[in-house]
Amino acid sequence: MNILYDERLDGPLPQVNKAEFLKALQQALPDLDILWREDELKPYECDGLSAYRTTPMLVALPRRLEQVQSLLKLCHQKNVPVVARGAGTGLSGGALPLEQGLLLVMARFNNILHIDPAARTARIQPGVRNLAISQAAAPFGLYYAPDPSSQIACSIGGNVAENAGGVHCLKYGLTVHNLLKIEVLTIEGERLTLGSDALDSAGFDLLALFTGSEGLLGIITEVTVKLLPKPQVAKVLLASFDSVEKAGSAVAEIIAAGIIPGGLEMMDNLAIRAAEDFIHAGYPVDAEAILLCELDGVEADVHDDCQRVREVMTAAGATEVRQARDEAERVRFWAGRKNAFPAIGRLSPDYYCMDGTIPRRELPGVLQSIARLSEEYGLRVANVFHAGDGNMHPLILFDANQPGELHRAEALGGKILELCVQVGGSITGEHGVGREKINQMCAQFNSDELSLFHAVKAAFDPQGLLNPGKNIPTLHRCAEFGAMHIHAGQLPFPELERF
Amino acid sequence: MNILYDERLDGPLPQVNKAEFLKALQQALPDLDILWREDELKPYECDGLSAYRTTPMLVALPRRLEQVQSLLKLCHQKNVPVVARGAGTGLSGGALPLEQGLLLVMARFNNILHIDPAARTARIQPGVRNLAISQAAAPFGLYYAPDPSSQIACSIGGNVAENAGGVHCLKYGLTVHNLLKIEVLTIEGERLTLGSDALDSAGFDLLALFTGSEGLLGIITEVTVKLLPKPQVAKVLLASFDSVEKAGSAVAEIIAAGIIPGGLEMMDNLAIRAAEDFIHAGYPVDAEAILLCELDGVEADVHDDCQRVREVMTAAGATEVRQARDEAERVRFWAGRKNAFPAIGRLSPDYYCMDGTIPRRELPGVLQSIARLSEEYGLRVANVFHAGDGNMHPLILFDANQPGELHRAEALGGKILELCVQVGGSITGEHGVGREKINQMCAQFNSDELSLFHAVKAAFDPQGLLNPGKNIPTLHRCAEFGAMHIHAGQLPFPELERF
Repeated sequence: MNILYDERLDGPLPQVNKAEFLKALQQALPDLDILWREDELKPYECDGLSAYRTTPMLVALPRRLEQVQSLLKLCHQKNVPVVARGAGTGLSGGALPLEQGLLLVMARFNNILHIDPAARTARIQPGVRNLAISQAAAPFGLYYAPDPSSQIACSIGGNVAENAGGVHCLKYGLTVHNLLKIEVLTIEGERLTLGSDALDSAGFDLLALFTGSEGLLGIITEVTVKLLPKPQVAKVLLASFDSVEKAGSAVAEIIAAGIIPGGLEMMDNLAIRAAEDFIHAGYPVDAEAILLCELDGVEADVHDDCQRVREVMTAAGATEVRQARDEAERVRFWAGRKNAFPAIGRLSPDYYCMDGTIPRRELPGVLQSIARLSEEYGLRVANVFHAGDGNMHPLILFDANQPGELHRAEALGGKILELCVQVGGSITGEHGVGREKINQMCAQFNSDELSLFHAVKAAFDPQGLLNPGKNIPTLHRCAEFGAMHIHAGQLPFPELERF
Repeated sequence: MNILYDERLDGPLPQVNKAEFLKALQQALPDLDILWREDELKPYECDGLSAYRTTPMLVALPRRLEQVQSLLKLCHQKNVPVVARGAGTGLSGGALPLEQGLLLVMARFNNILHIDPAARTARIQPGVRNLAISQAAAPFGLYYAPDPSSQIACSIGGNVAENAGGVHCLKYGLTVHNLLKIEVLTIEGERLTLGSDALDSAGFDLLALFTGSEGLLGIITEVTVKLLPKPQVAKVLLASFDSVEKAGSAVAEIIAAGIIPGGLEMMDNLAIRAAEDFIHAGYPVDAEAILLCELDGVEADVHDDCQRVREVMTAAGATEVRQARDEAERVRFWAGRKNAFPAIGRLSPDYYCMDGTIPRRELPGVLQSIARLSEEYGLRVANVFHAGDGNMHPLILFDANQPGELHRAEALGGKILELCVQVGGSITGEHGVGREKINQMCAQFNSDELSLFHAVKAAFDPQGLLNPGKNIPTLHRCAEFGAMHIHAGQLPFPELERF
């Protein structure tokens, strides 16, 4: 799926002679593992967004920092683009390779360097898996809070590059809120330390700037994260609603009541049925929407909050509120949610997962508009998402073998994201922009803002060698794409009423 | 106090003809209030760091956004430096004017534009006082968490520019963690929106980059902050110790026990006696150190945590732990802490407040080293600080009328900050770098990192017109200053043993 993407709009990339560069690389780094044969390159042609595929020119698999440093210096010198890749689980094509570029795989940097239980920090290499951090911290009663659904596979370098979120980021923040320090290499191979071991650092906040920059500013070589004490208790409530709008209102009411749940997730009927069929989580298959609300903390507090959330949900129109009776049921409730994407994958030959974030108060209206767009485009849309954060994940179901469906799915996805911008939200919550949403960036930002992004990019990488064609569109692309900057509140799409 | 600062090290500033520029400004903006007579300029010659004084060339007091926009365009066109100022309470000379520059006072932009209790946000102009936000939010049971000691006077624009903290930022974060969106003007007068109404936004995180950038990147014209529900209960414990090291260890133990207090503050004997004498807070004047630990949340939770903290403190060697009996005593306990700076001001003709941040585990050792440095330099040092964050505020007492004391105080302050860097910390926690710590930035960062700061600065302000000579030192300055970049763990000062 890549129909609406025309890479010529990103301007010319450097032309690289593969054979010559390979020779130079082998000479400079004789002990570096390099893949260059067609069959070896195949597994690296996409990341988690498998609809976009490109065969990389070369794949490098370094083991030591000095190798990465030398490799970057060589790419810089020879004008060769570099795309960094961790575990390759990203959902926006951020690690999509370039035909004329090197794919730099950081997966072998997978050591946990130090867990400091007193400071509550972990110092790790970028290829360490998200879940492995919490596992290593568990003997000290600590864990790493951000938990993307892919946490069993995704690595921390990619989490930083995409500013990953997860079910618990409503209460515990995104990746950026859980970092202390990163070590990075610039395209020129210079080592930089961003952030510090203390809770604040001087100068511009380059740590935050780097987080979520999707490989455009440098290569992450080490990460120091904050660890949190494991909550004493976690309870989960499952509430059923006869409309998604009522469930949306309940979310706003819970937050307005001053409760900050550990997680607050919504699924609509299509998603409920798919998940139930796949996981047998015990979901009510006739509900139009469910909310899963987790409360965590100390016993007495959690007990009180459960009571209050139950009352708020009932007042908002819940037809049933169930508390997981035991830990096994709690885990089952979450398993349904965490496996909702593959579950929906069983309903349809293809699906397209969106990732927009909106102010919470807009949830009911935006859900209505998505339903209307779904009808208009003749494609089913399932909704499974981080409702507490207003981070939506509409899943557009389609069949790429049916003529026109692919194109329609991509167009519908674009409309949904532009709708998010229109109500004051963002085209991404936690998956990043990558290749996938580069056109929608033109709707999100005006040309002054985009120019500033380019100037910041140039401060780090003036030749534009790091992950070109991702995250920040060229002004030329935006002019060609046509749908320029939408100010929140504007109505660029006459077919959508203001709700 | 400015002996160690030589402004020639920042490179030549543009030469401006005051009379000509004033005329151009009056013609372009006939309804703008401009101060230009010597006696009118006098009140603006310093900010909260009153030891540094410079008379500005002109002071502008705009009331409307368009005025600021036109004024910036004119400064850009005429190559005139601009220093922005809010309430002028900053403690690092960040709003120190320039003799050849315009001082842009944003204090008249003091409207609260919108409080949204459902979204829990406040949209405000930059001149709104920090405390006024919480006051406006109070009817909805909400408040704005960051609370610098100057909160009654300091304004939110300055809070964003300096990434202000406060007593409660251990639990609730610095300013950057409590922002959703800002509107800014570039030096060219372009309007930009950074962040969004949703909890995440796409592209580079320019909102975080801008926060704490000390007026070097643009002018803040509107701020949207997150509001939090007021905790049901807050209790405070006052623990006495017979050594500062034991108090320092208790801090580490509390955090290691998995408790996150609302505030965790330390004062040493000199500070205790000064505050008690001034405020009559009920502090134990014979204690070598006290800790104030506030626990907030729901009743049962707070009750449990008080018990646990009491046990941890006792185990760490507290000679006495008292809980404030009622709200009046709690307020009195805090009043002593919040007025500690002026209280110490009564002990000595002059004092110099430092603001370094260190990893918490280094607290006992760094406190010992400060005591040793204090003896060596023959100047008393009082310690009052945000212990939970590792954010220290050593106050160096001196008398500027005694020959050499001023110079010694500044040199001692520099040593203390370099000590913070040496143990892996930062030369600023919440006061910013400003003019005051510009030399110490050379110890904090290497030349690659400083070059990157300059490149980022140039992305926003290529002519270097916004607040030159603050926050980011020139490489020339660092070369002249001599004490170049210290890597944590290095021992550039042979007189300091590693602890």
